[in-house]
Amino acid sequence: MSVASSRTANPVSDVTFAAWSRERQQRIESVLERVLPAGAGPAARLAAAMRYATLGGGKRVRPLLAYAASEVTGADAARVDAGAAALELIHAYSLIHDDLPCMDDDSLRRGKPTCHVAFDVATALLAGDALQSLAFCVLAQSPDAAAADACRLLADAAGVLGMAGGQQVDLDATGVATDEASLTRLHSMKTGALIRAAVQLGARCGRPLAADETRALDAFATAAGLAFQVVDDVLDVEGSAATLGKTAGKDAAQHKATFVSLLGVDGAKARARSLRDEAHTALDRFGGAAVRLRELADWIVLRTR
Amino acid sequence: MSVASSRTANPVSDVTFAAWSRERQQRIESVLERVLPAGAGPAARLAAAMRYATLGGGKRVRPLLAYAASEVTGADAARVDAGAAALELIHAYSLIHDDLPCMDDDSLRRGKPTCHVAFDVATALLAGDALQSLAFCVLAQSPDAAAADACRLLADAAGVLGMAGGQQVDLDATGVATDEASLTRLHSMKTGALIRAAVQLGARCGRPLAADETRALDAFATAAGLAFQVVDDVLDVEGSAATLGKTAGKDAAQHKATFVSLLGVDGAKARARSLRDEAHTALDRFGGAAVRLRELADWIVLRTR
Repeated sequence: MSVASSRTANPVSDVTFAAWSRERQQRIESVLERVLPAGAGPAARLAAAMRYATLGGGKRVRPLLAYAASEVTGADAARVDAGAAALELIHAYSLIHDDLPCMDDDSLRRGKPTCHVAFDVATALLAGDALQSLAFCVLAQSPDAAAADACRLLADAAGVLGMAGGQQVDLDATGVATDEASLTRLHSMKTGALIRAAVQLGARCGRPLAADETRALDAFATAAGLAFQVVDDVLDVEGSAATLGKTAGKDAAQHKATFVSLLGVDGAKARARSLRDEAHTALDRFGGAAVRLRELADWIVLRTR
Repeated sequence: MSVASSRTANPVSDVTFAAWSRERQQRIESVLERVLPAGAGPAARLAAAMRYATLGGGKRVRPLLAYAASEVTGADAARVDAGAAALELIHAYSLIHDDLPCMDDDSLRRGKPTCHVAFDVATALLAGDALQSLAFCVLAQSPDAAAADACRLLADAAGVLGMAGGQQVDLDATGVATDEASLTRLHSMKTGALIRAAVQLGARCGRPLAADETRALDAFATAAGLAFQVVDDVLDVEGSAATLGKTAGKDAAQHKATFVSLLGVDGAKARARSLRDEAHTALDRFGGAAVRLRELADWIVLRTR
């Protein structure tokens, strides 16, 4: 399918970003509702913990990026649902494990008690584990080569060279002096890898991409992902638990290096804006088909939670 | 490929079970060695923990079952390697998480300190998480429909309806009166699901199976998997940490219902033998092609660790 025909099928300019993102957030909520186990069955408590930690909250940034990227290649949203859900399931699992007492020991997430507080630590551990399994189960539902390829991409992004590895680098770096290059490397693994996977998984659902188009989308995702983290650091200082839905001021309390501790608040905000510009520039070649990705980069920088 | 040609290619009767299993154990060790991350790289500590918990130990029961099942359908061992490694990676992750302080809080595994004792709890948590990701990464390496299908099968077996769900049922059941039917159901999820996946993943590497052949192999795996757990319960009572490589007497200390607490030692041993017979009967139709599966069922019941 050509970009032109996708733009005919999706007259994006007729719908505001707010309406589009709300529609997609509702869409992913109903996909997640469907793929998560019902609260019944032998492991009912586990199913309940998985649903608790995944449904009814969250900005759904990764699914939104996947849907937005799929518009670049003219894919129907229905083709993106499995990948979008898998991304959010991986993200939800990582939040549960990240909040555990042996990690950040946090009690507030998405405006409600963390999973191990609402249930118990063992159940929360298993809920994270089972959400990771479920992500690959959902992604592998269609038995074809593209599904296998998507599984490999997501597994790479979640694993030792991506998100989990980034968590470890973060643990190792806590309380240790660092510089901006090291911090950037850390976040390119911890949050960047999954955000890049989101863009690639979405884009792959439509027309095939040329190698330089893939690289351009990856440059967009790299910049947008880092901007997301820089803004997170600013919000950790400027935000409140009420607006963030999670504990504020956590980084300073844990003596973690952040973009704010390295650049100051104003420096970090300027960095976020320049990353947004980089993200936009990477999309130049795609014209109007990339409008949602551009709007997402704006929203990532302007958000207040 | 027909069963007959597989028997020509694999003259199994010329090699003893001991030699065959040793060769396959060495084979899976070298596959795991290759797919696990090197100890270098940004998350070196995480990679080291993943290697520590996976290499140089374990009976490799699930890989052995996969290789043995693949002989039924005449597959080359090389076609089974990815599935066998993925199974063992999932198993290794589950052992790490199962040993954590919030779960069984165990300090000895495979004859050495558990991962969280040798490293730390946060690193062990992440090592388990990253091993699960790696399993799907390895399984999805070949971008084809069979790989996607294998990912779905493994993810189902590892998730809320399988291994992780069984762990939760086990948590919920601790200290609660139970009967043999409930205990059997628990173990059909906790250990049975992955053992059944091992047999199916192996068998799928060769000639296509008829539906009733698939069912027969599943009946074998169900019986062999349960026998494995019954013998585990006997060894927990009769074995020592020195031979088991893990803490003995754990179930009684944790007030867990076991096949020994329900049936007595002699009753549990008799149950294991009758399950072995069931497993053998399920293989009747496969003749000599199933010799390794039959020998594995024998070994599962006769093992001392």
